[in-house]
This record gives sequence, C-alpha cells and structure tokens, in this order.
Amino acid sequence: MELDNGKIIHDLCKKLWPINRSITGDGVRKTLQIIQNELPGLTINEVPTGTQCFDWKVPKEWNIKNAYIIDPTGCKIIDLKDNNLHVVGYSIPIKKVMTLSELQCHLHSLPDQPNAIPYVTSYYKESWGFCLSDNQRQSLVEGQYKVCIDSELTDGYLTYGELIVPGKRKEEILLSTYVCHPSMANNELSGPTVTTYISKWIQSQPREYTYRILFLPETIGSICYISKNLMHLKKYVVAGYVLTCIGDDRAYSYLPSRSGNTLSDKVAKHIFENMYSDVICYTYLDRGSDERQYCSPGVDLPVASLMRSKYLEYPEYHSSLDDLELVTPSGLFGGYNMTKSIIESLECNKSYKPSQLCEPQLGKRNLYPNLSTPKTTKLVENRMNLLAYADGVVDLIDIANILKVCILDLHSEAIILEEAGLLIEC
Amino acid sequence: MELDNGKIIHDLCKKLWPINRSITGDGVRKTLQIIQNELPGLTINEVPTGTQCFDWKVPKEWNIKNAYIIDPTGCKIIDLKDNNLHVVGYSIPIKKVMTLSELQCHLHSLPDQPNAIPYVTSYYKESWGFCLSDNQRQSLVEGQYKVCIDSELTDGYLTYGELIVPGKRKEEILLSTYVCHPSMANNELSGPTVTTYISKWIQSQPREYTYRILFLPETIGSICYISKNLMHLKKYVVAGYVLTCIGDDRAYSYLPSRSGNTLSDKVAKHIFENMYSDVICYTYLDRGSDERQYCSPGVDLPVASLMRSKYLEYPEYHSSLDDLELVTPSGLFGGYNMTKSIIESLECNKSYKPSQLCEPQLGKRNLYPNLSTPKTTKLVENRMNLLAYADGVVDLIDIANILKVCILDLHSEAIILEEAGLLIEC
Amino acid sequence: MELDNGKIIHDLCKKLWPINRSITGDGVRKTLQIIQNELPGLTINEVPTGTQCFDWKVPKEWNIKNAYIIDPTGCKIIDLKDNNLHVVGYSIPIKKVMTLSELQCHLHSLPDQPNAIPYVTSYYKESWGFCLSDNQRQSLVEGQYKVCIDSELTDGYLTYGELIVPGKRKEEILLSTYVCHPSMANNELSGPTVTTYISKWIQSQPREYTYRILFLPETIGSICYISKNLMHLKKYVVAGYVLTCIGDDRAYSYLPSRSGNTLSDKVAKHIFENMYSDVICYTYLDRGSDERQYCSPGVDLPVASLMRSKYLEYPEYHSSLDDLELVTPSGLFGGYNMTKSIIESLECNKSYKPSQLCEPQLGKRNLYPNLSTPKTTKLVENRMNLLAYADGVVDLIDIANILKVCILDLHSEAIILEEAGLLIEC
Repeated sequence: MELDNGKIIHDLCKKLWPINRSITGDGVRKTLQIIQNELPGLTINEVPTGTQCFDWKVPKEWNIKNAYIIDPTGCKIIDLKDNNLHVVGYSIPIKKVMTLSELQCHLHSLPDQPNAIPYVTSYYKESWGFCLSDNQRQSLVEGQYKVCIDSELTDGYLTYGELIVPGKRKEEILLSTYVCHPSMANNELSGPTVTTYISKWIQSQPREYTYRILFLPETIGSICYISKNLMHLKKYVVAGYVLTCIGDDRAYSYLPSRSGNTLSDKVAKHIFENMYSDVICYTYLDRGSDERQYCSPGVDLPVASLMRSKYLEYPEYHSSLDDLELVTPSGLFGGYNMTKSIIESLECNKSYKPSQLCEPQLGKRNLYPNLSTPKTTKLVENRMNLLAYADGVVDLIDIANILKVCILDLHSEAIILEEAGLLIEC
Repeated sequence: MELDNGKIIHDLCKKLWPINRSITGDGVRKTLQIIQNELPGLTINEVPTGTQCFDWKVPKEWNIKNAYIIDPTGCKIIDLKDNNLHVVGYSIPIKKVMTLSELQCHLHSLPDQPNAIPYVTSYYKESWGFCLSDNQRQSLVEGQYKVCIDSELTDGYLTYGELIVPGKRKEEILLSTYVCHPSMANNELSGPTVTTYISKWIQSQPREYTYRILFLPETIGSICYISKNLMHLKKYVVAGYVLTCIGDDRAYSYLPSRSGNTLSDKVAKHIFENMYSDVICYTYLDRGSDERQYCSPGVDLPVASLMRSKYLEYPEYHSSLDDLELVTPSGLFGGYNMTKSIIESLECNKSYKPSQLCEPQLGKRNLYPNLSTPKTTKLVENRMNLLAYADGVVDLIDIANILKVCILDLHSEAIILEEAGLLIEC
Repeated sequence: MELDNGKIIHDLCKKLWPINRSITGDGVRKTLQIIQNELPGLTINEVPTGTQCFDWKVPKEWNIKNAYIIDPTGCKIIDLKDNNLHVVGYSIPIKKVMTLSELQCHLHSLPDQPNAIPYVTSYYKESWGFCLSDNQRQSLVEGQYKVCIDSELTDGYLTYGELIVPGKRKEEILLSTYVCHPSMANNELSGPTVTTYISKWIQSQPREYTYRILFLPETIGSICYISKNLMHLKKYVVAGYVLTCIGDDRAYSYLPSRSGNTLSDKVAKHIFENMYSDVICYTYLDRGSDERQYCSPGVDLPVASLMRSKYLEYPEYHSSLDDLELVTPSGLFGGYNMTKSIIESLECNKSYKPSQLCEPQLGKRNLYPNLSTPKTTKLVENRMNLLAYADGVVDLIDIANILKVCILDLHSEAIILEEAGLLIEC
C-alpha cells in the first residue's frame, strides 16, 4: 500500500473537510459513506432517537440547511456556508430581528485569539448561537440584526460505523475514533483518516487478532456502542486504542488506560521507549475522549489513547485554526506509523517455551559459531538470550525489555528458533 | 464542644498533675475517677495481683504515703510532698540512718541537666532510691542521714479504664493511652487528656465505627488487656493509635505499625501529606510505647502512634523539666486536631461504585455546565475524577491520593454523588 | 582446619596445574583422583559416549599423547610438553608436512597480547590446530613444516565427580564447579580447589542442609548431570552456586540467578551488603558458565555464581597469562571466605516465632537491665528487635535487613532467645 508519505491520508482529510458533522445527522452519514468507499466492509448503523443507553438517551437528530446574520446595513456578515463553525452545534431554529445587545448574548468569540472562530456546542440544553472571530465581533455596529438558523431537531438516529476484521483468534483489538466535529483537522479528521488507512493495512496482513474498528460520535456514540455490546467487549477485547488528534507535526502523545497496566499500555510504552525519544506521556487524569467510557468502572476495557498534539493542549484546539495546514501529510504519516508499530508489536507479542530442557546445541543446526575463541564466546546475543529467558510465562515484550531491544527486532530471532523447532509458541 | 484553643485540655492536665501515679495504686484510681467525671461511660476495671498475663504477672500494688531525707544538720532536704519524682517508683519501705556514701548508692541525678530531677522506676526488682537535681546532690555534706520511705507493696490490683462508644459497625477503632507516670506533662498527661477530649468529640458525632478507648498503665497494662481481650481485638479492630507525648508545641511525630501497611498507617500518612508539612516519621525500630504489645508477633493489631515531640527524643523527657510549661494549650489543641482529622478520615474512607455503567449525564442533574467551550471542557474536576475512579475496589483515600487532594475535601463530592444516586457505598 | 591464609589451596592448584584437562579424557580423571584424595567421599562417575542428554550427546573421549611442530630448519618450535594450551582442544590426529601458508590456517595467536598463548577448542566440529604467541608466529620462516598431533577420539566416557554431604534436612545446597580446562588458573583451578576446601569445611561442621557438590566438565557436564537428576534437583535444591574464577586478588563478582529473586540471591546480596564494599554485581545477561543450564527455562534451579574477576572480563582470560601468579593464596582465601560466609548465612537463616504473645519479661531471665533510666530505656537493641519482628513469616535475613545488621551477628541473639525458650524455630 502506497501512502505517498501521508499525502493520500491528507487527501482524504480534504474530502471530508467541508462536511458539517455533529453527533447525529446527515454530516455523520456522509462522512461514513466516504470512509465506506475506502473500507467496503464497514457497516453503517443507526440507533433511534430516544434509545436508552445506560444513563443517557439518544438525542434528537440535528440537521441544518442554512444560517446567517444580516447587519443593520443589510450586509450578510455571518453565513454558515462560509464556515461550519459559525453556528453553535445543536442550535434550535430561529428567525428573528433583534438589537445588537440581544444578539450579543448568543455570540461566542475568543478575545485571546481574535482571528479564530471558536467551536461551541449545546447538545443537551436547548439553545442557539453563532461563533465568530473576536475581530469581527468588535466591528459590529448598533442597530437591528436579522438572524436566521434554519435547523431541525427531529426524531431520527445516531449513526456509527463498525468494521470487524477477523483474525486467527477470537480475542480482539479495539480501535475507536470519532466523526462528530465539523470542519476541524487535528481534533477530528486526523482520527478517522488515519484509522481508515490503518484498517486497510490491517486487512492486507495476516492477523493473529480480530480487529473491531469503530467510527462513532464522541461520548454518546461510545456509550451507545458499549451499552449494545458490553458483554462481548468485556469477553474478547484484550487491547485497544482511541485514535484522536493524530495528524499534526509536533508532539507524539500518549494517554494510558485507567489502570495504566493493561496490555495496551505495555505494548505502547515498549514502542515509545524503543522507537521514539520524545513521547509526552499524560496520565488518566488528563483523559478527555472516549477512553472515559471504555475505561469507566465496571466497563474496564483496556483502552488507551494514541495522539500527536493532545486535545486541550494545543492553541488551535476547538477553533477554526485547527485546519489542514496544521495537519500535514507528514504529521498524519507519523501518526499512522506509530499506530502500525504498536499493532505489529501486539501481533508478535507471543509467549514461547523451549522444546526441551537446558541450552540446545545450536552448532549442529548452524545457529552458532563452532570455534570457541575469547571473541566468539562473548557472542551472547539476542538468540541466546531469547532461549535463556523464554519460559512460557514471560512474553516477547518482557524479554525485549530485559534485553533492552525492540520486540520488532527480537521477533525475527523468535521465528528462526521456532522454525528450528527449538521454541514452541504457548 | 468549645475547647477554648486547648485551654480546657490544659486545665485537665493541671487537675491531674499533683497525683502520684505508678503502674498500680491509688494514683491510677484517682486519675481514672477524674477522667470518668468527663466521660461517664468509662468503666474502671481492677485485675488482681498475681494474675498471669502471657509471660507476666500483675505485680503487687504500690502505694506511698510519705518519703523524705533529713541531712546531718537536721534539715529535711528531700520531701515527696515537694515532687513526686523524688522517690524511685516501686521503692520498698525503708527507715534508716546511714552515711552519705551509703546513701549515694541510692541517689539518681543527671549531671548533664543539673537542675532536673530524673524519673526512675524499679518495678520488677526490689529496690529503693531517691531522685534529685545534680546541683542539690553536689551540695550534700558528709555525715549521718535519716532516710524514710513509707511505702507499701501489697496484694492488690492493676487498674485500667475502658470506654466503648458503639457505632453503626461492629468493626472497631482502638485508641490507647497510659496513666502510669507521676507528675510529668508531655510524656503522660498530654496522652490521657487529649484522649479524653477526643472521646467526648467522638461521642458527640454520628459514627460508622465502634470505638474502644483505653487508659492503661504502660506495658503491663496493655499486655494484661490484650491477654483478656485477644480474640475480640483480633476480630474487630481495623485501625488504632497510641496517643502519647501529644501536647508540646514543637514537632508532630508519627510511628507506624510493625508492618507499616495497615489502614492506620494509610490514613495517617494521607492526612500528614495533605494537611501537615513537617511531620517527623519514625520507623517501627524507634518504637517504645504500647504499640510494642499491640503489634507484637501473633497479636498483630494495626496500631500506630500519634505524637508531637516523641518520647526519648526531647531533652526534658523523663525528668521534672517535662512540665506544664512545656505542654501548652496550643500544643494540646494541635495534637487533638491532628487526631480528630485522622478519625474523620477513617470515618469517611469508604469504597464507592457507580450505580450504572459509563459516565452519567451530569448536565440533566445540574451537576455539570451545559455549554461546551474550551474552558468548560477543561473542567475535569474532583467530581468527574471521583466518578472515573470509583470502582468499588479502591477506597476514597486511594482516589484522593491519585488526585492529590485531601480525602476530607473529596468526601463532600462523594456525598453529593451518593445523594444524586450516582455512587453507591460498597 | 588450617588453610595458612590460602597457601594450602594454592598448593593444590600447583598440583593440578600440569594436567591436560578437556571436557573428557584422562586429564579429568587424574584431576578428580587428586581431589578424591582430599575428599574421600567423592564418587567419580562415567557416562558413555553417545548417551543422549536432552539436545546433546556425550561426545567421543579425547586423549592426546604428543604434539609438536618442527620448522624448516629442523627445530621443534612448538611442543605440547611445554604448554598444554599449544594444541586446540579436541584436535583430530594429524601427521603431515606442509608449507607455512598451509600451516597458518591452523594457527591461533593474539596480536593484541603478543606474549600470550590463546586457549582454543573445537569440541563439536572436527578440526585441528596449534596456539602460540603472536611474537613466535611472526618469527616463522617460509618452508616445509613437520606437524604432528598424536591424539585419539574414541568411544569412551564423560567423567564427573559428585560429593553428597548429608545434613539434618533433605533440602539441598548445590555447589558446582568445572574441571575441563587445561593449564589455566583463575578460569579453572581456582574453582575446583576452593570448592574442595569449602567441602572439607562443610564436612567438618554440623549442618542443616544436605550438600550436593559437583566437579563437572562445563556445559556438556552440567547438561548431562541435570538430565540424569532433574526431578531430584527440582525437588530438593533450595539454593546453589557455581564457583568459578574465584582466585585472583582483584574484584569480588556476583552473577545472579535468572529470576534474581531466589534464596541464593537473597543470601548472597545480604552478605555483600554487610561484609563487602566492592562487589561487582553483574546481571543474568552476563552469564556464561553452568548457571546457563541450571537456570534454563524448565530447569529453573536457584543457582547464582560466585567469582572474583569474572570470566571474559579480565585481560588474561583464556590465555597462558591466566597462571599461578595471577591466582594467589590470598586471592583464593578471599574467595573461600566469601563462599563460607554465604553458606554460614544459609545455614542460620531460619524463621522464628515467639513462644507466647506480647513482649516477654526479659528482666526475670536476666536478659534485660532492671533499672529504668533514660539511658537503659533507650537500649532497644538487636535482642528486643528480634523479638519484635520474629513472626514466623519473615526469616532472619529479612529481619537483619530491617535492622541493617549482618545475619551472622543477629544469629547469636536468636540462639540466646531460643535457648531461653522465647523463640521457636518454625
């Protein structure tokens, strides 16, 4: 698969950029259809408004056709067509003339970032509003404003995508990303696009594990999904990651599972220690995406988060500045490769035991130099160390950690020794 | 309950000061009667001389009416009425004329602290002696001395006080202090007086735990008490503290249980880390009071010690300098408040689990702001964290330690969430 | 037993020095017979060529009578009689005239150590060769060389020595050393000679444990021995050490067992921390002797290695420079004493529990001062601490580690308290 150093992933971002997504509605559907074009196995699922999901109910479906503000001079100063962020998410319909001071109560801007349009939503309390740059807001003049939001809140559906990629084992790796933010790049499009291309790569490889790959609206989507699949997830998911904010060129970031001690954490930390010098490791106290649901008490799934610049921690977060210049081909490609290395490590992290006791005679198998000199004696290498530690209890990452080598390097020796009949997979 | 910043506790010390206590005898009885006036539920118990207590026997009861030394000039230079420390504890009766050099073998003074009268006892070997300041000792002249100790060693009783304050649970918190030292303030009166007022406070509050509060002679008293109550203590006591040397204005000190890992240790350490900046933490190697019995192998009770300046570690220890100027109202009040905070923490240190899975919808209960902006999103606070970690396994202190907050602050959030039906006590 | 500061051990090295040992053959037999003179209980065992030992077969027996090279001028420039290292171990017989360039393919020297004759073997691939100093090699002239190796590779035996010294318990301490290198001192003779004198000392003492003491050819010998005794070893061996390179005057070195957590490791580390300031602690990654077999997965014996300058880590290793000037009487005596201290610690590392609950009354047994003064009160010493910690769960080393004292000092107090009936061995 040729990703052209991430340009292909960036192109998919561009295609998804204009769509006005929210936690429900046609924006999610269109997004999932485009992803389905790339991943034909993806199923698109609809859960009706009002469906109870633990403490929550699936909300009404929100769609919006048009929204604008016309100023006292008759000029259309705000138009949804210019930027999806201009309207507060889940705004109720409104068509009214009002004074500037009435209007101000419904405007949102960022005085500290006067060029940025903020991203604001009000999913669970009826409200309406517009977002604009603080510069524009300061220029508004007194007078009567015509305000229109042509939106609909109707009984409908919550929509999510699910792709199951079967492997040799019933045990599953869960990947979860979200498709509920309008035109933003790192905190939205990087997640589903990297996940799409990781899914293609997974499908192209022989697999130990079964993969469960989810494209959901954040929070209500994962809660809904967990409520429908709890027993299965608890039984089969052995590791999992939320992929979010994984497309800029700055940091690599990691947020562990609640316990910090799961297979997901073990594998990710191993890869970071061996392949990356600069990963920012957050704690579960810094959580903020769907790991909040996957790791919640009683759900207890082993899910961590893979990121580049973490949500809430970069200045462009949740504003119009989080765009397709911030997210780059190389940034997306870096996120893709980190995720790929972690999945490769999961796949090869097996436990081995010896086929017989004591050191095997490697010489007769041409796996060891025959002539003993001070120098050859000193060749106690990965191969010998693997044989010395593989006891059927520790796994390959445990051994790699002892040897201070990367599992992806040690794995090749494991294959040689397994093929020579000296190690047996447990 | 109004303690007038500790003045009330200090007044009780003054009332108990003149009584000549030892490990048995009327001094203990009078002391316990005064405490019983404050704590009407206190029972005063008598164990006969000769009663076997594991490796020990309750000794004869010791009482003393009079003791003095008259010097060669006819002057009464030492008189028990002047200071209870003048006579070696458990001195046998003597009435004799002797030379200075004979007398010297029975005198105790502290050359390094020439103004101090030392405190000396000889409970288990028949002996007699006088204690005096080294200054006075140096002034003694040659000649014949009249020596009189009008004491009695008779079959009698060992006396101790016990107060049981029932709570909702059968599980018990043990508090233990001692009443066997004559006129000394930090290493004696601070313990029973702070314990008296802590007991009053416990009685005035709703309680989870049952409290077992003991006023004993040190060592033989706790051994005797354990021997009579071993099975009950091992079954019900979940935490406990020895209160001693808890009335001066200098340090706060802590001595852990033998294992260092009990609930008593966990709670005390949490309070020290969150409310005190300067607690001296000793190890069990520094032990020296009744925790030696409560934590002894096979007894294994979870008992630690709460102190201000620890016995053996301050210069006035076991001498006439340990007086009611060293122990102050504010010193006693500080010891009282530390103990109170630890007990409050024990009381509220419960385990909670969620009433349902995944995050609850706080907004519909007015427990979370409805408008999502970058700033409100960042409000991941105690309430959210408590919901994220309360899994029915960890307790409130475990969560408080993760959040680096004090349990007494977190507890209020737990109550809110419990009342909202979101958390259930396990 | 009088070792004359190690001179006696050094004398035994001198006696064993001239013998031409290999992994099989008469050199091993002669060596074991000399050791048997010192240890009459030693049995000498023979395992036939071809015997299957897990992945290995006992090789043919190798003996050599004569070997030399005559140079073009008729001068015998290399003669086995001058140095056993001159012939590559397990060289096949050869008698041939050849050019210098043909001969060069069969010569081994060390350009970096031009005076040293290297030690080279080829046990499992048919080959022949000579070892010489690089200085001599550089002086060789063109022409025809007469080359003779009068060796034999025949069906015979692998020979090893085994000494069982019974103790009170069936549980065993394993000591293992090797007898397969020709004339080298630290990496050969120090091991069997120190082990011989340690065995004599063990036999001279009352013992808790049974001792299993092995003198084997390295690798094939231990594999062979384990294959014949696996179940017994796994059932009874509670600790063990390989003794090797234990005779020079430089470092003390330690190589732990695979887990690093066994009784062997615990005892050795305790002795190092309390009696030695400068032990080099290697990891199991640095392994290289028979612990490779004893600790191999599935064998899992608790075996570590005791050394002075470790194999592979000193410049004279595996060359003619590893001689009886490098290994000294004081070096051997130091290795002997370290081993002895570790075995003494193993022997006295018991668990004790109290005979009754609470502190015993030491005074009535004359085990504690009767007069209580500030100073005597402070005498909380080893005896009191031992009573305070001995709970039948922790062992004497655990307690010694808490007290930061050496078990060999604490042991005397344990004996006193056991004899006084206050502690009971568990």
